[in-house]
Amino acid sequence: MHHLAHKAAQNLEAVRQQKPLIHNITNYVVMNYTANALLAMGASPVMAHAPNEVKEMVAFAKSLVLNIGTLTDDWVESMIKAGCKASGQNTPIILDPVGSGATALRTLSAQQIIAKTSPAVIRGNASEILSLRDANSKTKGVDSTHSVDDAAEAAQTLATELNTTLAITGPTDLITNGKQIVRVDNGHPLMGYVTGTGCTATVVVGAFLAVDPDPLSATATALAYFGLAGEKAGQTAEAPGSFMIALLDALYTISPEDLQNGCRIREN
Amino acid sequence: MHHLAHKAAQNLEAVRQQKPLIHNITNYVVMNYTANALLAMGASPVMAHAPNEVKEMVAFAKSLVLNIGTLTDDWVESMIKAGCKASGQNTPIILDPVGSGATALRTLSAQQIIAKTSPAVIRGNASEILSLRDANSKTKGVDSTHSVDDAAEAAQTLATELNTTLAITGPTDLITNGKQIVRVDNGHPLMGYVTGTGCTATVVVGAFLAVDPDPLSATATALAYFGLAGEKAGQTAEAPGSFMIALLDALYTISPEDLQNGCRIREN
Amino acid sequence: MHHLAHKAAQNLEAVRQQKPLIHNITNYVVMNYTANALLAMGASPVMAHAPNEVKEMVAFAKSLVLNIGTLTDDWVESMIKAGCKASGQNTPIILDPVGSGATALRTLSAQQIIAKTSPAVIRGNASEILSLRDANSKTKGVDSTHSVDDAAEAAQTLATELNTTLAITGPTDLITNGKQIVRVDNGHPLMGYVTGTGCTATVVVGAFLAVDPDPLSATATALAYFGLAGEKAGQTAEAPGSFMIALLDALYTISPEDLQNGCRIREN
Repeated sequence: MHHLAHKAAQNLEAVRQQKPLIHNITNYVVMNYTANALLAMGASPVMAHAPNEVKEMVAFAKSLVLNIGTLTDDWVESMIKAGCKASGQNTPIILDPVGSGATALRTLSAQQIIAKTSPAVIRGNASEILSLRDANSKTKGVDSTHSVDDAAEAAQTLATELNTTLAITGPTDLITNGKQIVRVDNGHPLMGYVTGTGCTATVVVGAFLAVDPDPLSATATALAYFGLAGEKAGQTAEAPGSFMIALLDALYTISPEDLQNGCRIREN
Repeated sequence: MHHLAHKAAQNLEAVRQQKPLIHNITNYVVMNYTANALLAMGASPVMAHAPNEVKEMVAFAKSLVLNIGTLTDDWVESMIKAGCKASGQNTPIILDPVGSGATALRTLSAQQIIAKTSPAVIRGNASEILSLRDANSKTKGVDSTHSVDDAAEAAQTLATELNTTLAITGPTDLITNGKQIVRVDNGHPLMGYVTGTGCTATVVVGAFLAVDPDPLSATATALAYFGLAGEKAGQTAEAPGSFMIALLDALYTISPEDLQNGCRIREN
Repeated sequence: MHHLAHKAAQNLEAVRQQKPLIHNITNYVVMNYTANALLAMGASPVMAHAPNEVKEMVAFAKSLVLNIGTLTDDWVESMIKAGCKASGQNTPIILDPVGSGATALRTLSAQQIIAKTSPAVIRGNASEILSLRDANSKTKGVDSTHSVDDAAEAAQTLATELNTTLAITGPTDLITNGKQIVRVDNGHPLMGYVTGTGCTATVVVGAFLAVDPDPLSATATALAYFGLAGEKAGQTAEAPGSFMIALLDALYTISPEDLQNGCRIREN
């Protein structure tokens, strides 16, 4: 994967040079951490969800992150309003359908956002992504009960149906646009002990989408970068508190060269 | 207290094995930290407050945490809706009446939640707990102006009246179900310099309630565990920032044996 | 500036002795961090935004912090309600007009809050502060596109017009009440890589306003203290995650004497 390793370095370099504004409409739990992750990697976050503001704000943004982690109906309306504006101006959208499959509100809201805003990328765990297809899929809260491998074939079909790029993250991440499948092996077990690491993976993809017009390569390289940051954090931190701080540090200190050498991306 | 020391170790072991889903409807300030605390100790947090979702979400949960720290009327309605569903299915509830006694909205909301949802445990500082009985009690903001000792007798009476277990936390924690009183001496002064340590004590109790059917022992052992984590954090950290991170680390690294040896629980 | 260096030490000492209650109606992103900053420095934070509570809560407060970072119309209404009550009882208000100039909602809300509540201090970056005067000023999201130097003269005029003290923060902070200008050189480049450092500067000023009746000296000394904490954090931390934790630690460990010796405040 010389091509994608090189692309990863380019994307990270581009984010740091361009400092793209990333508009987030996201959940209360992770707002602080994802804003810090975006700053640490070199991007410029803004959080804004007011229905009478989101269209004006997203007009400045280079990508839009939608995350339903603590959704209510009014927030979903703002997400759709911002998403329609973003789509209309060709600003890429990434959706994180947190807990889709766990409750009807989450599944239906995710499906509605997808139908109305056409996200370039949707990132979730296997259960969340599969729930977008199969209403009978059940997750345990917001955690996954499906393996990435179970989901590969279904994801490829679903990506084609939805005309999007799907990212199913786990010990190995699977990314597919329906035609191609890419896998990323970077990551660290302590990422599962910090809240919002999935949501943070999503915003990192959001930042790479702002500088890379191909959703497949933007997503794969962003997840490799984020996973590598986890690996680097795990070299010094042995417990979740230290790890979450070291992860932010690693997003800042990893150089494009480190990323090119350290990313583990496999095609098919 | 050989019995409760042993029980403490059992409860921590059980949380790590069962990874119970803990449903939180809580305040904006602490959501991230309490979610991280639950993950670090081995439980599985979910935050969800939408009125058209909470009943479906709490159906999966092993316990429900209600916290009025940044309450508004609509959030209190969601708490009551979730709480009624939880009570109906015998899922234990723990209430954190943050700032009760400071404003009428907080006192009345706490009293209403208690009346309608029958929490298994209520945890607060002395002023908050006493405000549930005496409308003339006054707290300074959300901080306590009563000592734990003042509150012991009143708490025992109130626990009986409300048919619940009360936990008044402070340098020494006092836990009573009306019949028995247990005290916990674990803790560290820097806990008072980190926002939401009270709220975090509450979610730790929530996780132990998910594996221990006796609210008194669940609460006492959880508070000993949380206080011990504070002591361990205080061995390396000398200021609040480092301390809050070391506290999360300690929740992860303390073993059941560490807890059995380190907990300081006194009956009466 | 012997006078203001001495005043800085006095103000820090007074905050630690009086532990003033600071009422915050602020944004979701920074609530946890700003509450922790207030605790670390020795103050007592409370976050409360319910329309049927804010007047009762602010009655106890020694200062009120209003921050529009994740505003919606209902939150702005609560800010105005709390602000009118605060003004009526001579409790000082500090406004952080986050992103004013970026969207009409932010600019108009900031202007409305100012008109109705008469803040003692308004702190923002140059673009935000200038937007309060000039509707054509444009910020890139919530980041500044004006330098502090550009803004000095305009700020002095605007402070007089609005009868307030303006603080424009950046590599050098500029503070003016219309008559006098004070500059603060403390700070560290990593502060720009942590979300909410501007908002945190605001709450630190809020705490100093609670003990110092002169908005100009309260603001200048608070910003010197916060900037010095950044410098101290930068001595040990080399990346944003570690830095944000070390910054909280520094707020706790800096003594009045450290502050008197380390502050770099210039008149005119």
